[in-house]
Amino acid sequence: MKVAILGGGGFLGRRVAERLAAAGTLGGDIAELPEAAIPAGTEVVFHLAAVVSGAAEADYDLGRRVNLRGTDAVIDACRRLVAGGGGAPRVVFTSSIASFSGGQAAMLDDGAKQVPANSYGTQKAAAELLLADATRRGFMDAVSLRLPTIIVRPGRPNKAASSFFSSIVREPLLGLAAELPVPDDFKVWVGSANSAVAWLIHAAAMDTAPMGLDRSLNLPGLSVTVGEIIGALEQVRQGASALVARRPDPVIAGIVGGWPAGFTAARAQALGFAPNEGLVELVRAFVADDLEATRRDRGMT
Amino acid sequence: MKVAILGGGGFLGRRVAERLAAAGTLGGDIAELPEAAIPAGTEVVFHLAAVVSGAAEADYDLGRRVNLRGTDAVIDACRRLVAGGGGAPRVVFTSSIASFSGGQAAMLDDGAKQVPANSYGTQKAAAELLLADATRRGFMDAVSLRLPTIIVRPGRPNKAASSFFSSIVREPLLGLAAELPVPDDFKVWVGSANSAVAWLIHAAAMDTAPMGLDRSLNLPGLSVTVGEIIGALEQVRQGASALVARRPDPVIAGIVGGWPAGFTAARAQALGFAPNEGLVELVRAFVADDLEATRRDRGMT
Repeated sequence: MKVAILGGGGFLGRRVAERLAAAGTLGGDIAELPEAAIPAGTEVVFHLAAVVSGAAEADYDLGRRVNLRGTDAVIDACRRLVAGGGGAPRVVFTSSIASFSGGQAAMLDDGAKQVPANSYGTQKAAAELLLADATRRGFMDAVSLRLPTIIVRPGRPNKAASSFFSSIVREPLLGLAAELPVPDDFKVWVGSANSAVAWLIHAAAMDTAPMGLDRSLNLPGLSVTVGEIIGALEQVRQGASALVARRPDPVIAGIVGGWPAGFTAARAQALGFAPNEGLVELVRAFVADDLEATRRDRGMT
Repeated sequence: MKVAILGGGGFLGRRVAERLAAAGTLGGDIAELPEAAIPAGTEVVFHLAAVVSGAAEADYDLGRRVNLRGTDAVIDACRRLVAGGGGAPRVVFTSSIASFSGGQAAMLDDGAKQVPANSYGTQKAAAELLLADATRRGFMDAVSLRLPTIIVRPGRPNKAASSFFSSIVREPLLGLAAELPVPDDFKVWVGSANSAVAWLIHAAAMDTAPMGLDRSLNLPGLSVTVGEIIGALEQVRQGASALVARRPDPVIAGIVGGWPAGFTAARAQALGFAPNEGLVELVRAFVADDLEATRRDRGMT
């Protein structure tokens, strides 16, 4: 199977490539997509390239160029394949729950409309529309996955407002302190790295005929409280939760507090997307798969 | 008040300009918006410029350039005003119910999500998202109006799938035959030309603070059957309805049959948008305001 992975240098892209033993990753400016990135005969395109939330908020032009023009470039590349006599490739696009708002009170069903509260979510929602239309027109066969907040991300804490959801597990497992900027009863919609990769690969192979015009899916993640995440950490590594310091931060709480607390995700489950594993299993998988590599990457051994 | 009307050469744009005695219309390619189109000090921008449904479906690149890049150009022009120390202008944008699907069974409330079945509706829905985000960022103060099918349009029948909704009234009033491609019980969501102009002008002056993040409105049009439209014609001009010939056309029925039959439009009414006048009044207004001009424009006198 000929696979192209756009944004393949990122966390999820690398794992999808490993799982598929596929190459075809792409660097550079996706808005100027070279023809070689999606060559004739490509059957599956993973379109993961994005300017993430903090960066798209800080630089409007950059977010528009990569998240919107980049998607137009993917559409045009697929149109050229079809115009050249090829089949319409499956395009798996990573959208985000940041395309919704509504906050802690919101438990959204599959009919909920997207009212984004940030430029990243706006650009993702607009890209979903363009990909669905490109599918209707026969340029491609798109599936847009609105990923939950992925925990536990390997690496280091970063400036993303959502960074702490991973840090409160990863840092204590490394023996380091972590700060919690929201109350313990704060609700968040999460998915594991393993589930995200499995969802992406399922989307590449599934039967899309039942989807009709609506090519976007809310995925079966977990609606959990931050306290429950810390509880799972403690269950996997006794004493580790003592390294989590409560340090309220109204700015961070304001941003992540706008995201919905959960989704029913009934449509995705009916289409064969497996529910996320439980929190304890999720933390154990991070320990088994990523903890040593993270320690190494951070020069801690 | 300094007003710019983009797309001011069209049917609604000319009427808004007449009502406001405003100029500032724009020709040419809106995606290359000249700075002069939205000069410093502009307080209100009517963004009506669009490639309509049939044309956007026939020419994907043209629809994208005008309907999406054109909206980006409006956003950038408003950003420049604000960056130059000016106030964020009110932007009144004409979106469309073509951004929805669902067909004859659909009576949609204000929470309904947009699942477009054509490129025009897709581009309008995406533009709404971009304008809402530009508003949140302080570049402008946008109100997007999802106009119903407007009847009775002056002029001639054209190739738009929706053309017959006006033709079945206008042509018989001119003494000419008209074809009806759908059954008499076919439901359609309509608005009058007078209501459309009044809604646009209300949107330019209203208090937008209660709108929050969601800057788009379904308007209080009328859900009527084609038979009721023909009945109103007969009431205004006895015998005229005999000129309507039933000529089923599955292609046209397929396109217009995908549009929702009605909307509750509660939010727009709460925000002061007046309900559309009744069908008989609507037909009488066309006779009073447009019939003679249409006859003249078509060389019939």
